[in-house]
Amino acid sequence: MALTYNRIAGQGLERLAALSDGIFAVAMTLLILDIKTPDHADIHGEADLIRALRGLLPSFLIFFMSVITLGIFWIGQQTQLNHLKRGDRNLSWVHIAFLAIVSILPFSTRLLAEFTEFQTALIVYWFNILLLGIILYFSWNYAQRHALVSDDTPHELNCAIQRRILIAQGLYFAGMLLCFVSVWASIGFILLVQLNYVLAPRLGFLHKL
Amino acid sequence: MALTYNRIAGQGLERLAALSDGIFAVAMTLLILDIKTPDHADIHGEADLIRALRGLLPSFLIFFMSVITLGIFWIGQQTQLNHLKRGDRNLSWVHIAFLAIVSILPFSTRLLAEFTEFQTALIVYWFNILLLGIILYFSWNYAQRHALVSDDTPHELNCAIQRRILIAQGLYFAGMLLCFVSVWASIGFILLVQLNYVLAPRLGFLHKL
Amino acid sequence: MALTYNRIAGQGLERLAALSDGIFAVAMTLLILDIKTPDHADIHGEADLIRALRGLLPSFLIFFMSVITLGIFWIGQQTQLNHLKRGDRNLSWVHIAFLAIVSILPFSTRLLAEFTEFQTALIVYWFNILLLGIILYFSWNYAQRHALVSDDTPHELNCAIQRRILIAQGLYFAGMLLCFVSVWASIGFILLVQLNYVLAPRLGFLHKL
Amino acid sequence: MALTYNRIAGQGLERLAALSDGIFAVAMTLLILDIKTPDHADIHGEADLIRALRGLLPSFLIFFMSVITLGIFWIGQQTQLNHLKRGDRNLSWVHIAFLAIVSILPFSTRLLAEFTEFQTALIVYWFNILLLGIILYFSWNYAQRHALVSDDTPHELNCAIQRRILIAQGLYFAGMLLCFVSVWASIGFILLVQLNYVLAPRLGFLHKL
Repeated sequence: MALTYNRIAGQGLERLAALSDGIFAVAMTLLILDIKTPDHADIHGEADLIRALRGLLPSFLIFFMSVITLGIFWIGQQTQLNHLKRGDRNLSWVHIAFLAIVSILPFSTRLLAEFTEFQTALIVYWFNILLLGIILYFSWNYAQRHALVSDDTPHELNCAIQRRILIAQGLYFAGMLLCFVSVWASIGFILLVQLNYVLAPRLGFLHKL
Repeated sequence: MALTYNRIAGQGLERLAALSDGIFAVAMTLLILDIKTPDHADIHGEADLIRALRGLLPSFLIFFMSVITLGIFWIGQQTQLNHLKRGDRNLSWVHIAFLAIVSILPFSTRLLAEFTEFQTALIVYWFNILLLGIILYFSWNYAQRHALVSDDTPHELNCAIQRRILIAQGLYFAGMLLCFVSVWASIGFILLVQLNYVLAPRLGFLHKL
Repeated sequence: MALTYNRIAGQGLERLAALSDGIFAVAMTLLILDIKTPDHADIHGEADLIRALRGLLPSFLIFFMSVITLGIFWIGQQTQLNHLKRGDRNLSWVHIAFLAIVSILPFSTRLLAEFTEFQTALIVYWFNILLLGIILYFSWNYAQRHALVSDDTPHELNCAIQRRILIAQGLYFAGMLLCFVSVWASIGFILLVQLNYVLAPRLGFLHKL
Repeated sequence: MALTYNRIAGQGLERLAALSDGIFAVAMTLLILDIKTPDHADIHGEADLIRALRGLLPSFLIFFMSVITLGIFWIGQQTQLNHLKRGDRNLSWVHIAFLAIVSILPFSTRLLAEFTEFQTALIVYWFNILLLGIILYFSWNYAQRHALVSDDTPHELNCAIQRRILIAQGLYFAGMLLCFVSVWASIGFILLVQLNYVLAPRLGFLHKL
C-alpha cells in the first residue's frame, strides 16, 4: 500500500504542477489584457497613434517587470516541486495559497501601472512579491521537516533554495524603500535585481539556482 | 483488447484531470479580475489611495473564501480521480457538469461581493457550493456502482469520501441559515468551516481526507 | 529512427491534447463571464435582486447549452485523438482550425443570449456547431486515409465516429430550421438532442460512442 | 546523479511545454474576446443584425490571421522542444521571453483590428511577429551551442529549423513593406504566406518542417 500511496502522492504533485502552470499561464496573459489600445476617437493620424503608443511604454515596462516576477517564481516553485519525492495535503494547501497570491499579481500590476505616482501602489506590489517569497520559503521548510524532499537532492541545493529567497527578498525590500525617494527608482532597482537573476545567475553571490 | 480499452480509459481520466486543472486555474485567476482598481479620478493623494484600497478589503475577503472553496473542491475531485482505475462516458459527463458549476463560482463570488447586504446573494453562493457537493457525492456513488474505483482503495477511504461531503454540506447549510441573522455572520462561519478543513484536517471529527 | 519519429509524433498528440484542454477550459470559463451581475443601482431590496436574477435565467439556459456543446465536442475530439497512433503536421492544423472554431463559441453564445429574438443569432450559433462537426468529420477522414488510426481500433468504432457526426449534424440542422417557427423552439430542440447524447447514449440509434 | 539531473531537466521541458500550451490556449481564446457583439440599441430587425455582423468580417479576418500566427509559432516552438534532450535555466528564460511576446499578440491584434487604416498598427503587428521569430531563432542557436539538442535529431532538420525562420521572416518583412502601399495589401500578403505554410508545406522551397 506504501507503493500505492506514493503513486497517488506523485499524481498529486503532477496535478499541482498542472494547476500551477495553468494559473501562471492565465496570469501572464491577463497582465497584457490590462493594457488598453488607444481610444479611436483620439487618433486622427499616424502621428497621433505613435504618440498614443509611446504613452503606453511605462505600462509595458511594468508589464515586463511582472512577467519577469512571474517567471522567477514559476522557476522557483518548479525547482522545489522537482525535488520533492511526494506531496501531502498540507503542501497542496501551501501551494494553493501561493497560487492565490500569484493570481493577485495582475491586480497589483494594474494598480502600479495606473498609480505609478503613488508610493502606496509600489508598496502593494512589493508586498505581493514578499508574500510569494514567504510562502515559497515556508513551503521548502515544510517539505524538509516532513521528509518530502527527494533523497538525491544535493545538500548544496537543499540549503541554497532558502538562502536565495532570503537574499532576493532583502534586495526587493531595499528596492521598495527606494520608493520614498521615487517610485520609478524602485521600479528601476527591482528590474535590475530581476535582470541579474535572469541574465547572470552564474555571477557573484546570487549564482545558486 | 481489454488492455487497449483500459489504456484509452486511462487517457480519458488524464484528460479529464487536465481539463479540470485548466478550468480551476482560469476560475481562480478570474476571481481577482473582478476586483477593480480604484477609479483614478477619485484619487488625489496617498491617503485617498489607501482609503480606496481599504474599501476593497471585503472584496478580498470574499475572494479568499472563493479561492478556498475552489481549493477544497479541486482537492476533493482530485482525490476521487486518483482512486479510479478507469473512467467512462457517463463519469466524464458528471465531471463536465461539476466543472460547469465550478465555472459559475466567479459569477456567484462577484454577486456576493457586490450585494453583500442581501441574503439572496449569499443563498446563491451557498447553492453553488451545494451543487458542487451534490455532484461530487453522486460522482463517487456512480464510480462505486460501476466498478470504476481502484481495487487498492482502502475501505476506510471509500466510506469517508461521501461521509465527508455530507458533513461539510451540513455545516455549509448551517452557515447559510445564519444569513437570516446577518450575511457577514454567514461568511464568517463558512470561512471558519473552510479554514478548519484547510488547517486542521487531523483534529476532531472532520479529520478524514 | 522510426522509433524516434514515433516518439516525437506521440508527443505532438499529447501537446495537441494539452492545447485543446486549455482552450476548452478557457472557453467554458469565459462563457459565464459574459453573464453580468445585475446593476447595483437598480437593486433596492431582496425582491429586486431575485427579479434581476430571474431575468438572467434565459442567459443561464443558453450558457448550459454551450457547456454541453463544448462537452460533446471535447469528448468527440478526445475519442478521435485516443484512437490515433500518431499525428502529423496536417492533422495538427486541422485541430488548430477546430480549436479556433471552439474559441468562437463564446462569441456565438453571447450573440444568441443578447439577440434571442432574431433568427440570425440562432443561425450563427448553428453554423458554429456545423463547422465543428465538419472539421471533426474531416479530421477522422484524414486520419484514416493517412494511416494515423491505431491498428487496434475496433472496425465498428472506425465507422461509427463519422456516422455519428452525420446523424448529430442532421438533427442540429432540423433544430436550426425550427428557428423559422421560433428561436426558442430551436433552442429547446437542440437542447433535447444534446441531452439525449449526454443522458441516454445507450438508447436507440444514437448509442455509438 | 547524472540520471537524476536528466530527469529533472526533462520535467523542466515538460513544464515549459505545459506553460506554453496554457499561454497559447489563453491567447487564442482571448483573441475572439475582443470581437464585441453588436450594440443591442442599434439593432431593430434581422437586416440590422446581419449588417452589423457583416461589419465584423474584417475583425474576423484579422482574428484568423492571428490564430494562424499562433498556430505557426506553437508548432515551431513544439518542434524545437521535441528535439531537445534536456533544458536548462537559460533556455527556460528564452522561452519565457517568447511566451511574453506571445501574450502580447492579442494586444497587437486588437490594435490592428481597430486601426487598420494606419500603417503604424500593421508595423506593430509585424514587429510582434519579428520578435517571435528572433527569439525562436536564438533559442535553437542556444540549444545547439550548449548541446541541448537530441543526438538523434537528423542533421537536415537541425539546419532547416533556422533557415526556415529566416525565410519566413524575410517574407513577413516584405509583407510589412507593402503597408506603405496599403495596410490591407500587407494583411493579404501575410495571410497568403501563412496559408502557404499551413496548406502546402511540401511545395517549393518552403517545404521543410
